[in-house]
Amino acid sequence: MNEDVAVSATLNPALLTLDDLNAMDADDFVAALDGIFEHASWVAQAAAAGRPFATVTALHEGLMAAVRARPADDQIAFVSGHPDLAGKAARAGDMAAASVSEQAGLGFDRLSDEEFERFERLNAAYRARFGFPFVVCVRRLTRDAVLDSFERRLGNDRETELAAALTEIGYITRLRLVEKVDGPGMPKVAGRLSTHVLDTHQGCPAEHVRVELFEVGRSGRARLTEVFTNADGRPHGVLLGGGPLRAGTYELVFHIGDHFRAHGLALPEQPFLDVVPIRFGISDPEGHYHVPLVATPWSYSTYRGS
Amino acid sequence: MNEDVAVSATLNPALLTLDDLNAMDADDFVAALDGIFEHASWVAQAAAAGRPFATVTALHEGLMAAVRARPADDQIAFVSGHPDLAGKAARAGDMAAASVSEQAGLGFDRLSDEEFERFERLNAAYRARFGFPFVVCVRRLTRDAVLDSFERRLGNDRETELAAALTEIGYITRLRLVEKVDGPGMPKVAGRLSTHVLDTHQGCPAEHVRVELFEVGRSGRARLTEVFTNADGRPHGVLLGGGPLRAGTYELVFHIGDHFRAHGLALPEQPFLDVVPIRFGISDPEGHYHVPLVATPWSYSTYRGS
Amino acid sequence: MNEDVAVSATLNPALLTLDDLNAMDADDFVAALDGIFEHASWVAQAAAAGRPFATVTALHEGLMAAVRARPADDQIAFVSGHPDLAGKAARAGDMAAASVSEQAGLGFDRLSDEEFERFERLNAAYRARFGFPFVVCVRRLTRDAVLDSFERRLGNDRETELAAALTEIGYITRLRLVEKVDGPGMPKVAGRLSTHVLDTHQGCPAEHVRVELFEVGRSGRARLTEVFTNADGRPHGVLLGGGPLRAGTYELVFHIGDHFRAHGLALPEQPFLDVVPIRFGISDPEGHYHVPLVATPWSYSTYRGS
Amino acid sequence: MNEDVAVSATLNPALLTLDDLNAMDADDFVAALDGIFEHASWVAQAAAAGRPFATVTALHEGLMAAVRARPADDQIAFVSGHPDLAGKAARAGDMAAASVSEQAGLGFDRLSDEEFERFERLNAAYRARFGFPFVVCVRRLTRDAVLDSFERRLGNDRETELAAALTEIGYITRLRLVEKVDGPGMPKVAGRLSTHVLDTHQGCPAEHVRVELFEVGRSGRARLTEVFTNADGRPHGVLLGGGPLRAGTYELVFHIGDHFRAHGLALPEQPFLDVVPIRFGISDPEGHYHVPLVATPWSYSTYRGS
Repeated sequence: MNEDVAVSATLNPALLTLDDLNAMDADDFVAALDGIFEHASWVAQAAAAGRPFATVTALHEGLMAAVRARPADDQIAFVSGHPDLAGKAARAGDMAAASVSEQAGLGFDRLSDEEFERFERLNAAYRARFGFPFVVCVRRLTRDAVLDSFERRLGNDRETELAAALTEIGYITRLRLVEKVDGPGMPKVAGRLSTHVLDTHQGCPAEHVRVELFEVGRSGRARLTEVFTNADGRPHGVLLGGGPLRAGTYELVFHIGDHFRAHGLALPEQPFLDVVPIRFGISDPEGHYHVPLVATPWSYSTYRGS
Repeated sequence: MNEDVAVSATLNPALLTLDDLNAMDADDFVAALDGIFEHASWVAQAAAAGRPFATVTALHEGLMAAVRARPADDQIAFVSGHPDLAGKAARAGDMAAASVSEQAGLGFDRLSDEEFERFERLNAAYRARFGFPFVVCVRRLTRDAVLDSFERRLGNDRETELAAALTEIGYITRLRLVEKVDGPGMPKVAGRLSTHVLDTHQGCPAEHVRVELFEVGRSGRARLTEVFTNADGRPHGVLLGGGPLRAGTYELVFHIGDHFRAHGLALPEQPFLDVVPIRFGISDPEGHYHVPLVATPWSYSTYRGS
Repeated sequence: MNEDVAVSATLNPALLTLDDLNAMDADDFVAALDGIFEHASWVAQAAAAGRPFATVTALHEGLMAAVRARPADDQIAFVSGHPDLAGKAARAGDMAAASVSEQAGLGFDRLSDEEFERFERLNAAYRARFGFPFVVCVRRLTRDAVLDSFERRLGNDRETELAAALTEIGYITRLRLVEKVDGPGMPKVAGRLSTHVLDTHQGCPAEHVRVELFEVGRSGRARLTEVFTNADGRPHGVLLGGGPLRAGTYELVFHIGDHFRAHGLALPEQPFLDVVPIRFGISDPEGHYHVPLVATPWSYSTYRGS
Repeated sequence: MNEDVAVSATLNPALLTLDDLNAMDADDFVAALDGIFEHASWVAQAAAAGRPFATVTALHEGLMAAVRARPADDQIAFVSGHPDLAGKAARAGDMAAASVSEQAGLGFDRLSDEEFERFERLNAAYRARFGFPFVVCVRRLTRDAVLDSFERRLGNDRETELAAALTEIGYITRLRLVEKVDGPGMPKVAGRLSTHVLDTHQGCPAEHVRVELFEVGRSGRARLTEVFTNADGRPHGVLLGGGPLRAGTYELVFHIGDHFRAHGLALPEQPFLDVVPIRFGISDPEGHYHVPLVATPWSYSTYRGS
């Protein structure tokens, strides 16, 4: 789900450099960026004239500028060329290779019958209302957040939704671009979630504390990872990172009772605090979220830290 | 579930007073206390000689002392006369009226097949091991806590379990007694759970906050109550009280996001804090638990207060 | 300093009742309220016509309305009749008895030479600028707050200051009135400061904790009171109350290290937390300020509670 | 006061390396370490035989082992050779150069007459009682902590104090050694004090917050440093570090009111929180102390973090 999108050139010898892209002729440029904008090589073609780009971010901005420069009708045609979220078009195999992998990461193959019907209705309603498909960068949202966003955006007017679709295509193509191109000024596409457990009963970091991370949705929850804290009270390894965080609701679950018991504290049969859940929302996929737990057997606090 | 056990004489004209019990002759005393100790009128008979009792607590202690004064074999016979938790003995209708109502409050009619089989096996194993039924004051434990206590107590030796059974009968009879008798020095049988919501973003109590209280078990959760806070940030009405709290795991769920939104704070689409769960354990059924929430949209803390 | 301004009729047989004031003839009404408005019996005279008053608050509002109804020149003359804060006028003994006692509570007899000169200059500058004396209800401000308010108000225009003077006279006369009259709907003139100490290392209120309260000023600090917490972690007796709180800066000092040592915690030679100061400001003299300390030997928090 | 004791070889070409010390002949070894142990070249002489030392820590341990191997009388003579804390011996210039600089850092030239007399009496009483001078590594204690330690140690028996003196000489010589020698396995002689300011009203680090650090003593306080936080809420530069922290009492003072006002929050004339002091004790000179402030205008918390 959170694949590393910043594969460096040394790991992937096929990765293009910004220098290469700036230097090659326009046709090669367009061919090299094939797949970033599906069935829309004109975008790269129009952007080629903006070279040289000083940064990869500027390259992406140049590509999106080519889209934004077009009249609304052309933009609508452009958006219409983007694959439908989960309709027959996906199954017909006429999508560019990249779209297929993005949709596999969605979890839409785990929808209940009820959710699938709801999704299909929303999808059809959206297309009927606006005349182009619902476009969203699914890697930046949890599934629940995608469905919520569907409902919310259905209520917008056409102009707003066209702009929203372009913004989302901006996010999608930015993620594809960083997987393909390396160079100075890479766009920031990765967020990070970290935690820290402090035992204020003893006045030191809490080691060996089991911490689970769940994605929380309306119809259930899914465990994403489980970590243990080191001597500094921080997890070995990363909680979430390496790519965009999916906006949505999460829950960190700290097994703090085990920690206090392990330290020989005589706690009641039913300790006041045993398993401590912290539910929080991520709204910025490229943001840094630090969600610590400062605890004694009788109290705790948390805050959005840094 | 938490029926008011302290019905005063003015509400129940049939309620006995301690003065009456001290004054009446022994046979009347025994008859008056019928039902407190099932099928064991000898207890009241033995205790009658200890009159007059200065307090209702002393009366109860006198009754239990009569039991504790007996040799172990008599105590075992006494315990054996206590109704089985959920076996045929219950269905045969040979239990004293009070036992039936206690078991109805257990929720054992909501056990899954798997849990019921587990329960039956534990019950049989206990009786086989110790020669007397598993006795527990079910009003002082959540269902999960009862099952846990079964497993834990199965590992004790016979002497420990006989003492445990007497202790539990002490709790059961104490609850029955306070429903029947009024007088000075009532035993403390009621616990209390309270909360308080403070908005430290604005520096004042949080009004109109929806707070739900759940009992949390291994196989699911049950909502016990829902309250809204008043202008002082405290719930209208009581969260839990009026009788013993059931030892076990609970969760308070504070809909704090709605509060901040209602106050016009511009929060992200996915607010950092929206629904805040606080999971805690109650170990003392007669204790006072104050579990406040001190929150901003970006942080919160809680502690066992007073 | 914080004398009890709500002396009830039962403690002071000379206290007037609202009923009496409503019933007596106008001349008696004016005589009865002598001293509330210094050298300005016309105020009571004008207000007498507004009787009967339903509440003591309404009575006070009626008196102030009589003042506010006058043209600006008359108001200026009225303000000019109010005693100067600490000038010769005070020493000449021509103030009404009430003013003398208010100024004695100020602590202006404890000013350093430098402060006194600064005060005199401000006083003279104010009078020169506005043509009437600086009027402030000194019982609602700490000395530092009075001096700060002097500086701040010197910068206002005449219209603003005239209004400010009347507002202050409103506060002064309201305090005098509640000492003289009893009846329904008493104006709220008393604030309250409370605290609560919770030990989250042990999960219970902290008993026998020594807590000192200081008034903090630019040139030093003065200890106002010292209390010890009871079994519920709250002070025996009141921290501040019984009258208006003086707006200004304060510091609560909690001797929490002694508490932890008394409980046998093995703390380092230099404990991380020993004496914990909490500095806070009071801005609302009639407000309720609850400033708790929630502490372990390694952490603490505080908040404006309720 | 907190001079950098870990001057690397590149900055000080005269710095010896452990390799050099291991390789040179014994006489050169003793000469090279001259000044580490004042007037006691026999220590280095005895330790030379323990070469080669794998780490600088092992070198120091080897030197101290040479001292600890001696009989008590020799140890007493050794301790007696250590300069008196502030007596004539200091002024007579017969101390090794290093001792002079350590005492200059003490601030004993800032003692009031009363304190100086107390100090002189303690010093004389100590020598009279034990027959050797009071030895303490003054760089690891605040002046108040030195005086307290004087009083406390006066109550010990001779054996305990001899051991204490050797331990202190261990600390003193260890600090001298790291200034002179570089190599693998340097002893840990430096502690660190850090802070972090989080604004939980806005949910982000607090930038540009002025933070002062004071040393707090019985007879007054001295400001050690003033810093401003960066965009991550942490001070530019270090609060305390580069050498041992002095055990004692400190106070961080956060000008958080200015921060909230700068962000346009409408706070009362007297804000509830304006200047927030956090008083804490450092007991471990080589420890890491992280003392954050997590604050809104209405609440704050702190804890010993990491």
